[in-house]
Amino acid sequence: MNDKNPIDFWFDFSSPYGYLMSEKIDALAAQYGRKVKWHPILLGVIFQVNGARPPAEGTGSKAKYVLGDFHRSARFMGIPYNPPSRFPLPTQNAARAYYWLHGQDCGLARQFAHAAYRALFVDDRDISAPDTVLDIAAGLGVDRAALATALQSPEIKARLKEEVDRALAIGVFGSPYVLIDGEAFFGADRLPQIEKWLESGGF
Amino acid sequence: MNDKNPIDFWFDFSSPYGYLMSEKIDALAAQYGRKVKWHPILLGVIFQVNGARPPAEGTGSKAKYVLGDFHRSARFMGIPYNPPSRFPLPTQNAARAYYWLHGQDCGLARQFAHAAYRALFVDDRDISAPDTVLDIAAGLGVDRAALATALQSPEIKARLKEEVDRALAIGVFGSPYVLIDGEAFFGADRLPQIEKWLESGGF
Repeated sequence: MNDKNPIDFWFDFSSPYGYLMSEKIDALAAQYGRKVKWHPILLGVIFQVNGARPPAEGTGSKAKYVLGDFHRSARFMGIPYNPPSRFPLPTQNAARAYYWLHGQDCGLARQFAHAAYRALFVDDRDISAPDTVLDIAAGLGVDRAALATALQSPEIKARLKEEVDRALAIGVFGSPYVLIDGEAFFGADRLPQIEKWLESGGF
Repeated sequence: MNDKNPIDFWFDFSSPYGYLMSEKIDALAAQYGRKVKWHPILLGVIFQVNGARPPAEGTGSKAKYVLGDFHRSARFMGIPYNPPSRFPLPTQNAARAYYWLHGQDCGLARQFAHAAYRALFVDDRDISAPDTVLDIAAGLGVDRAALATALQSPEIKARLKEEVDRALAIGVFGSPYVLIDGEAFFGADRLPQIEKWLESGGF
């Protein structure tokens, strides 16, 4: 261990570039003696507040490009990726599950986050459904009934809302958004800049 | 020489990421035996047709981030960059000058494009002004009076309009936009993917 600040990583469970970042950021940070704090948020709220739109929205040439770029970027980064049948999709159940698990065991929450992302972007499972979220968690040994209750609890709903509000206050405008000692990096394609920043302490 | 297809490169003279691409694409392409065809266009028209907005528009957290990312990305790529006082700005005079010069000497047109981009993004000159465009061209030995006449000629105006229309028809939605054997790459941050594509013929 060391006394370097942790890195913050905001993402939405339906964000393909967030998924790509999730597969790389922990190992990269560890190379430079850093931990990463993961913060699932709801991009729909973030976009609404910012008057923004999802990058792959619509049927125009940009949307077509972005859908292809998700896939090509995954190949470029050596990460498995299958375009989901349903996309984008609501992710509050996955995010709530994450925060409930995190309150008990942060390592388990991290495992769940990886499993939920891979369920969507590798195995084409509809992680918007509570049952799918419960199945994923149960596969990691989580008490299914306890989690089902937690997904509807006011405390967990409030926790997710607080995280989204805090992200907005910090200036998070998309996914993935990574903050290192006050320096923001948006997008999986900023990983090379993140690496150089960690290596040199700024450039 | 060889018979590989040239690469197409669309950009707007007021696009910082277009400038970053312009400093790298020719040398990278040459490593793989490729030439690059440059196509200055008018992003204002492209955005209007697509119902899109410039990435750094407004005063929100995304705009602030993007302005900082222009600068940081330039440092990361080892390219000189000074944020222009006036930004964005109209670029039809620079684009028209490019096409007129290209009709006479494509090497000279390339030199002019580099000089115009550096005038804006290194020396903070207002390249929207016809006089600045004429000064830049005159510095390369171009007949200033002939170019001044050309900038107002119906032929050159029509040529630029044709290029913008053709870009729209191809699906260009931003700057820089690079097309290699039918595969599109958007953004200076796609240079590593472009390199891998040129190296391996696809991935």
